[in-house]
Amino acid sequence: MVNATCPSVHPVEAPPPQTHGEPQNPMPQGRMNDIPGMPGTRGGLTLRLSQFVFALVAGCVMTSTHATSTYTILRYFVNAVSWQCLWSLSLAFVDLYAILVKRRLRNPKVVSMFAVGDGISSTITFAAASASAGISVLDSNDFHSCIRDRCTRYQASTAMAFLSWFAVSSSFVLNFWTLASKSSH
Amino acid sequence: MVNATCPSVHPVEAPPPQTHGEPQNPMPQGRMNDIPGMPGTRGGLTLRLSQFVFALVAGCVMTSTHATSTYTILRYFVNAVSWQCLWSLSLAFVDLYAILVKRRLRNPKVVSMFAVGDGISSTITFAAASASAGISVLDSNDFHSCIRDRCTRYQASTAMAFLSWFAVSSSFVLNFWTLASKSSH
Repeated sequence: MVNATCPSVHPVEAPPPQTHGEPQNPMPQGRMNDIPGMPGTRGGLTLRLSQFVFALVAGCVMTSTHATSTYTILRYFVNAVSWQCLWSLSLAFVDLYAILVKRRLRNPKVVSMFAVGDGISSTITFAAASASAGISVLDSNDFHSCIRDRCTRYQASTAMAFLSWFAVSSSFVLNFWTLASKSSH
Repeated sequence: MVNATCPSVHPVEAPPPQTHGEPQNPMPQGRMNDIPGMPGTRGGLTLRLSQFVFALVAGCVMTSTHATSTYTILRYFVNAVSWQCLWSLSLAFVDLYAILVKRRLRNPKVVSMFAVGDGISSTITFAAASASAGISVLDSNDFHSCIRDRCTRYQASTAMAFLSWFAVSSSFVLNFWTLASKSSH
């Protein structure tokens, strides 16, 4: 049973509590923890690392265009993906720790913190990717001002940012679902 | 008890099923339905109408700038908020019907359809609003090419689109939470 006093992490193979003299509750407790991608699992760590790598590549490619001095919004883009890198890397270390000590992150407060952080982070990254896509379309379709491979780099960087956003959104949906499932018990 | 064979709508003041000879299940069933803003409630209808009005104003103001012929991305913006108008108005009619017949929308399939639709719709609107914000910043900060009150109109239109997105996101979160809560039972 999940309550406010339980610790942040629980053993993976903890046996279910045995009750004597009364029928067991058939309601599945925390069954969402078995889905790959949850915090503290290998799937969760893979998701975090993919968010980090995509955001890192997006930031590096965008910086290489040297367009951040021309367009204010591309500076925001680089800041947004930098924040995404930091957030995803931090959570990757938390997942790695949980895997190494063979425990899972189940505390509702921790899961809600992850969900809120993922929600904010994915919103910021998606806004940056969309704005960058707008600039990319503007340069290639409207102004036809693509110097060398600048537009290709914009597009590659934007695609990486969208991939990073997709991975963060997956983490957000999984955490939010877990939180809602637990809160209804 | 929610299952796949129950109808789409249920009476608001339906008495709880009485069981004889066995103890009642103390688990709260569908308690999230009491939160204002759920589908089939006055709060839900208000949310839908606010989404519709904000998206409509955003589209009208953006069209009045006559910039959609210059910037491809602003044509996408107008298309996106038009879709948002259609979606929100359709769901507003569904909510209105449910209120008039004094019933609530509780079927998991209907709620999941609303959640998926809201998720897609909010993503499209947010992408359009972010791209429009990018163009607005470009015109005012980088190019300093604000003819008359064009940039003010961009900003007003973008702000309305963000407000519409915020209202759709609220509907999405409420529907998704309900779905997760019901699925865990």
